Amino acid sequence: MRIALGLEYDGGSFCGWQSQSGGCGVQDRLETALGQMTGHAVRVHAAGRTDAGVHALCQVVHFDTEATRPQNAWVRGVNAFLPAGVRVLWAQQVDAEFHARFSAERRSYQYLLLNQPVAPAILHGKVGWFHRPLEVGAMQQAAACLVGEHDFSAFRAAECQAKSPVKQLYRAEISRHGDFILFEFSASAFLHHMVRNLVGSLVYVGKGEHPPDWMAELLRDKNRTRAAPTFSPDGLYLSGVHYDAKWSLPDCARWLPLG
Amino acid sequence: MRIALGLEYDGGSFCGWQSQSGGCGVQDRLETALGQMTGHAVRVHAAGRTDAGVHALCQVVHFDTEATRPQNAWVRGVNAFLPAGVRVLWAQQVDAEFHARFSAERRSYQYLLLNQPVAPAILHGKVGWFHRPLEVGAMQQAAACLVGEHDFSAFRAAECQAKSPVKQLYRAEISRHGDFILFEFSASAFLHHMVRNLVGSLVYVGKGEHPPDWMAELLRDKNRTRAAPTFSPDGLYLSGVHYDAKWSLPDCARWLPLG
Repeated sequence: MRIALGLEYDGGSFCGWQSQSGGCGVQDRLETALGQMTGHAVRVHAAGRTDAGVHALCQVVHFDTEATRPQNAWVRGVNAFLPAGVRVLWAQQVDAEFHARFSAERRSYQYLLLNQPVAPAILHGKVGWFHRPLEVGAMQQAAACLVGEHDFSAFRAAECQAKSPVKQLYRAEISRHGDFILFEFSASAFLHHMVRNLVGSLVYVGKGEHPPDWMAELLRDKNRTRAAPTFSPDGLYLSGVHYDAKWSLPDCARWLPLG
Repeated sequence: MRIALGLEYDGGSFCGWQSQSGGCGVQDRLETALGQMTGHAVRVHAAGRTDAGVHALCQVVHFDTEATRPQNAWVRGVNAFLPAGVRVLWAQQVDAEFHARFSAERRSYQYLLLNQPVAPAILHGKVGWFHRPLEVGAMQQAAACLVGEHDFSAFRAAECQAKSPVKQLYRAEISRHGDFILFEFSASAFLHHMVRNLVGSLVYVGKGEHPPDWMAELLRDKNRTRAAPTFSPDGLYLSGVHYDAKWSLPDCARWLPLG
C-alpha cells in the first residue's frame, strides 16, 4: 500500500530534507516516526529536497507499507512521534504508480524578505533581510523576463544534479506588504539554489546596482559567475506541489498569511 | 542623559523580560550590551514586564548614561552586542522626567491563534493553537462587554502585583485571517496574565462551551476560579506602548503582518 503525506516543517530545526548520518534531516525524523507507527523500516520519497534552513508550507512525500491503520492515524499518530518543527498535514492512500517526486508537475516557492534597517528578531531564521530600501517596481520589471521556458544556468548551483538547466517557469511575482517583500515562483521543477539565486539578483536590481534588463542579460549569458551571490535560505518556503487531478490528492498549496 | 529605546524580541529565546540570576532575561542581555557600549553598568526600565515565551513587537525601555554616542550607535552599535532574538528598533534622547513604565498611558497586545486540526510547525512557539473550529462571531459578542473601566479580577493571576484590579480597556477586537484568529487589546495597563486569561475564556465561548454573555458574568463575579485556564504564552505579542505627545517619542505600535 502506498501512502502520500502533506508536510509542514521549520527548516531551522533540521539540517535539510535529506537523510544524514547524524539523523538531523527531516527525512530521518519522519522515517523514524513512521517506523514507530508501522513496526517496520520505512523509506520516504519527497517532491523536493529542500536545503538546510529552507522551510516547507507543503511538502509532499510517499512511502510503502503493509501496515493497515485508520487514515487519521497517519496524521495524529505520526505527529505524536515527530518533533515540534515538523507536522503531517494530511495523509491519503494513493495508486502504486504515484511517485511524490516523479509525478509532480509543478512546484511553488515563496521567498519572504524583510526590508527595513533593523534585522528581524521575532522572525529571525524565518525571513530573509535586506537593510537598504528596495524598488519593488524595478524588481517586478526584471522578473517579467523569467516566465517561460529558459536555460537557467545563470541561477544554478555548481553542485546541481538536474539533467537539464532548462525549466519552464510559470510564475514570478513580487509584491510589497508593509516592510515585507514577497517573491512567488512556480515552475515545472527548480535547479539547486535557483530561487535563492534569482532572489539575490533581483535584490541587486532592487537596490539599483543594475537596471531591470540585467536579468534578461544574465539569462542569455548562462554564466553563474555574472549573477549575484546566493541569498540566505532563511526566507525560503516550499509552498506547494501540484499533481495531475487523476491522483486525487488534497490541494497542497499553502501561503504565508500576508495581506 | 536619559535615552529611550524601542525593542523587538522573540520571547522563546529568553526566560521573560525581567532580570534573572542566570542572566536569561531580555533585560540581562540588554543591560550587558549597553554596558559594553557605555563602559559602565546600566539599569534599564521597561514599559511592561513580559513573561517567558511572550514576544514584543515594540517594547519601550529607558536608561541613564553619561556616555555620549551618536544616536545611531544606540541602534546599530547595541544591536551588534545583542543575540539574534532581540533588536533595538530606534533610540531617542528623552527628558529626565520621562519613565518608560510610569509615563506610559496605554499598552497594546495582540494574540495570534492558529485554529486548525494540526499544530503549527513553522510558527511553533510564535502562535497559540486550538484544534477545534472556533466561532469568531460568538467571541466578538463576548468581547464587547470588556471595553470600558472594569474590575478584571476574574482574569488576574494570583501573583499579580498591581495595586488595583480596575483597568480601562480601550479595545477588544477579534478577527479571522484564514486559519488564524487575531485578538487585539489596548488598555491603560494590564493585570498579570490578563490577556492570556481573556483569550482562554474567549476560546471557551468560541468552542461553544459557554454562551457569549458568560464573559459579562465572569466580569461581574470577579472570581478567577470560574473563568477558563490561562492560555499559552506562545501567541502573545506586546504590540505597542503609547505615550503623551509631549515626550516626542517615535510611534511604537507595530502589528503582525496579517492581511
